[in-house]
Amino acid sequence: MRTQVAIIGAGPAGMFLAHLLRREGIDAMVLERRDRAYVEGRVRAGVLEQVTVDLMHRLRLAGRLQREGLVHGGTNLSLDGRSFRIDMAALTGGSTVTVYGQQEVMRDLFDAAEADDLPIVWNAEDVALAGIDGERPTVSWRADGVDHQVACDYIVGCDGYHGISRAAIPPEVLTTFERVYPFGWLGILADVPPADHELIYANHERGFALASMRSTTRSRYYIQCGLGEDIADWSDDRFWDELCLRLGPDTAAKVTRGPSFEKAIAPLRSFVSEPMRWGRLFLAGDAAHIVPPTGAKGMNLAVSDVTMLGEAFALHYKHGSDAGLDGYSARALARVWKAERFSWWFTSVTHRFPTMDGFDRRIQMAELDYIRGSEAAQRTLAENYVGLPLTGGISSEAV
Amino acid sequence: MRTQVAIIGAGPAGMFLAHLLRREGIDAMVLERRDRAYVEGRVRAGVLEQVTVDLMHRLRLAGRLQREGLVHGGTNLSLDGRSFRIDMAALTGGSTVTVYGQQEVMRDLFDAAEADDLPIVWNAEDVALAGIDGERPTVSWRADGVDHQVACDYIVGCDGYHGISRAAIPPEVLTTFERVYPFGWLGILADVPPADHELIYANHERGFALASMRSTTRSRYYIQCGLGEDIADWSDDRFWDELCLRLGPDTAAKVTRGPSFEKAIAPLRSFVSEPMRWGRLFLAGDAAHIVPPTGAKGMNLAVSDVTMLGEAFALHYKHGSDAGLDGYSARALARVWKAERFSWWFTSVTHRFPTMDGFDRRIQMAELDYIRGSEAAQRTLAENYVGLPLTGGISSEAV
Repeated sequence: MRTQVAIIGAGPAGMFLAHLLRREGIDAMVLERRDRAYVEGRVRAGVLEQVTVDLMHRLRLAGRLQREGLVHGGTNLSLDGRSFRIDMAALTGGSTVTVYGQQEVMRDLFDAAEADDLPIVWNAEDVALAGIDGERPTVSWRADGVDHQVACDYIVGCDGYHGISRAAIPPEVLTTFERVYPFGWLGILADVPPADHELIYANHERGFALASMRSTTRSRYYIQCGLGEDIADWSDDRFWDELCLRLGPDTAAKVTRGPSFEKAIAPLRSFVSEPMRWGRLFLAGDAAHIVPPTGAKGMNLAVSDVTMLGEAFALHYKHGSDAGLDGYSARALARVWKAERFSWWFTSVTHRFPTMDGFDRRIQMAELDYIRGSEAAQRTLAENYVGLPLTGGISSEAV
Repeated sequence: MRTQVAIIGAGPAGMFLAHLLRREGIDAMVLERRDRAYVEGRVRAGVLEQVTVDLMHRLRLAGRLQREGLVHGGTNLSLDGRSFRIDMAALTGGSTVTVYGQQEVMRDLFDAAEADDLPIVWNAEDVALAGIDGERPTVSWRADGVDHQVACDYIVGCDGYHGISRAAIPPEVLTTFERVYPFGWLGILADVPPADHELIYANHERGFALASMRSTTRSRYYIQCGLGEDIADWSDDRFWDELCLRLGPDTAAKVTRGPSFEKAIAPLRSFVSEPMRWGRLFLAGDAAHIVPPTGAKGMNLAVSDVTMLGEAFALHYKHGSDAGLDGYSARALARVWKAERFSWWFTSVTHRFPTMDGFDRRIQMAELDYIRGSEAAQRTLAENYVGLPLTGGISSEAV
């Protein structure tokens, strides 16, 4: 078996890349250790940057997104119950974000992949990479008890933080950077109308809260919680009470309570592994970097990684230039680190840290007060929130 | 003896206030425990915000400033030797900062005070405040072995962090916020032309450095150093070598070396005491708050405090409204905390902290890289650097 690009993992990074390569006429196959229902069912991100929306349009995947996605021209910050709005569209020359669950994105990607006969191997067990430091890498796996192998030109690891791809790189080659936050997010989904038509990021004395949604009838709420908390201690009533307290009375009055049908605690982590290429292996998305969910950069970063990779492979296969592939790691990391910075900053300014003293708290309050009153500060936040441009493209110069 | 406003301390806060009150026809006297030569000789800040320059013009104190001050429309940031310029004037609609030493400001303030017969008591020993929680406060002191006392309506404490004014407020009334930084600034003055016509704030692997000046022939350079360092270990040669290393080869090539005539290590501290008023006593400047020198906010904050106080006293004595005095603490603190935030942030993003790990360092680099590429981020920095507006004025509404 032979392909040009073997993609490990059928999450957003892998599937967007598969579609991008198909559009360029580049052979690719995707190996996924789970099945479609599992991948599609994972509850993940729900806010798409302009960059991601644009890519879905370019790939003609945006039909349902256009009908069902909720376009947000603004977002709200709240300090101790007093909130103000950042008019992102006005501040960025019209850029917005779109609420559209990762589950919906995956469904669109998989439906289009089936229609286009994109080769995806589901339930691939014991996936292993070989020869990535040479000219002829191979990927092997087992399916239904039978061993398989594919020879390829390049491998792209889109298999997440716990995947095998990053682990295939000799540890001495990689430098990793990590920050584990001393709290988690307790999140619920409930089929009730959201409190507001846009998101509300709330900094409260008792901790962070986020009012979000999946649709006009499905709410997504989060509250910051201790890492050692037991989900069993959080009845729906307790959750709603704490949420309303942190959002403050004005917003609380608009919260519709109802039974949650999903409730989970997630840790928050910042992580970057450098470089994002070794030999014939490229890493994209969570395989190379993790952001805390504040600001919703995770899936969007995966999309910008593979957008850059798509350009780089097109340059290689259609124009014979390796400039894109050789520059990929540096170009991707420049944007990754800016998103890491933004996610870290947005987390730092909205959460309650166990080590915070009065000075830290006042600095948080001053920062939010400053943002409230400064158009420049609001524009800074807005341009990061809708997604920084994919600068550093080398296509035109390099050809 | 009787006056309307007794001012403790003849530093920038006290002297600007004395001039402001004179202009409004309000009686004031200044008590200073040192003599003029001492106060005027202290080496302190050297960068004036637009707000401070504007005030000197309003007070007709700007003659020499206009001739000798160096107007800076921009400032430079450097990361590991690679620098870029923030065009502050273009980004803020024409605001600038002016390099003009605090010693020069004090000389202008004192000269004008002499010309205007502003009452200043020099060498006032054992200054003590009484009755500040009542209707008739008094200030007592000894001079030349004789006890004196003045009755007044209000007292303004402009006597700095170590002064007696803040200490006269019952401790249980005050909340204090403090951050001591784990490093100091080793600074020199030398009569050599500055490396650049504007300032350069340098973040280097080995620590922070700042290329500044007092005039076109007098340079002011700083490098971050350990708190336990002995000044005796820092020969001029060692200082110049380390400075040039941190500024990077391009800037180092423009550094003119020469003998230093002042060399000292200063600690960095953030400090705020709330509220800034108790009874008939108001605090202004360092008596209520300290910022680290990064961004040069210290003297400028003192000026904005007393500008607000000047308005408040005018409202009281000329219009019979206490709205300004009653609102002073909240109004001043709102601006103080934004300047505290900026100074803390600018320190955090440019210095090497002993506890920094790789993630922190990359976040610093990403932040500077982001600022380099984002007009919004540059405008945010610029508007803070030239000084945020004195919002919250209540004069017009309250009269």
